[in-house]
Amino acid sequence: MQDLAQQFEFILEIDKLKAIYRQTSVQCDNSRAENSAEHSWHIALAAQILEGYAVEKINIDRVIKMLLIHDIIEIDAGDLFAFSVANEHKLQAKKELAAAHRLFSLLPNVQYQEMKNLWLEFEDAISADACFAKSIDRILPVLLNIAAQGGSWLKHQVRAEQVLARNILLQKSAPKLWAYVSDQVAIAVKNGWLIRS
Amino acid sequence: MQDLAQQFEFILEIDKLKAIYRQTSVQCDNSRAENSAEHSWHIALAAQILEGYAVEKINIDRVIKMLLIHDIIEIDAGDLFAFSVANEHKLQAKKELAAAHRLFSLLPNVQYQEMKNLWLEFEDAISADACFAKSIDRILPVLLNIAAQGGSWLKHQVRAEQVLARNILLQKSAPKLWAYVSDQVAIAVKNGWLIRS
Repeated sequence: MQDLAQQFEFILEIDKLKAIYRQTSVQCDNSRAENSAEHSWHIALAAQILEGYAVEKINIDRVIKMLLIHDIIEIDAGDLFAFSVANEHKLQAKKELAAAHRLFSLLPNVQYQEMKNLWLEFEDAISADACFAKSIDRILPVLLNIAAQGGSWLKHQVRAEQVLARNILLQKSAPKLWAYVSDQVAIAVKNGWLIRS
Repeated sequence: MQDLAQQFEFILEIDKLKAIYRQTSVQCDNSRAENSAEHSWHIALAAQILEGYAVEKINIDRVIKMLLIHDIIEIDAGDLFAFSVANEHKLQAKKELAAAHRLFSLLPNVQYQEMKNLWLEFEDAISADACFAKSIDRILPVLLNIAAQGGSWLKHQVRAEQVLARNILLQKSAPKLWAYVSDQVAIAVKNGWLIRS
């Protein structure tokens, strides 16, 4: 039962993702900060709903699996605000790689390899699956910030060009969703929720 | 873009699952109540990790999809404590069916049918996929309550036989996991975390 002991240890360890808080808010719950576990659930389901907009051939089951694990590394590395400066992102990438090693290696070796490779593929955002997964991870905060009349954009004085640059993957992976984001960014600028670039 | 508008409406509506609180606690976060969105993430990933213990042939991708949507109906119907009396469970089942109709029908018709059928299959717990999915949904609170030295069992004076009855599906779907649950229940009784039957 060595494998089972390791698997249960991993399952209990990742419970900690429920205490990693993001910049986005949960509107329906007194605007408390959203945590990375519930965020991961939301985007895994959103990817399934929006699968039909992917223009390249994707395997939605792999996309969902990527999205379920993509933030686990934050248990050790923390969540970095999307619009932080480039230097911070470099340091964060190092922390995340170490975290992936520590966390996934709690699992039996075959599962460790599978999970780590899937996470690395997501991070690289080159394969069609990873590209679509990352696009969905990035479009959801747009939806939530629009619904919250500015949300974390207002709080951090985010510029329209930053949101567009962050969602540029969509242009290639799902052009119809990209058109939607572009429209929403224009509305947000008009409403004063994003700073005009 | 009628479909896209409906899909985004659904995606925003299910955000409310983040405000549905369960009886189990999140230990790593000052023992606050766990919500059904983060719970759904946790069990979807747990199912993937524990896939190898299923004795019947299952399609893990369908299992994951079931687990991602299985609690959405709580947005309208609320979460009922697992060990409530039978009468309450009957009333709850009616509320949940109405909730499934309202929530999934926000989606375009094809997706509505798919989601509702998948949810009904999970509820019936007859197919191998649904049986394994439901087993995982029930084993995770055992893990969490053991880690919390009794947790919601202690709070609600739960009896050992109730936990065993609730996990009986495991006996058929994943006997090795059933053996683990039986052992853990015995330990919990010994430690005073569950009432001896």
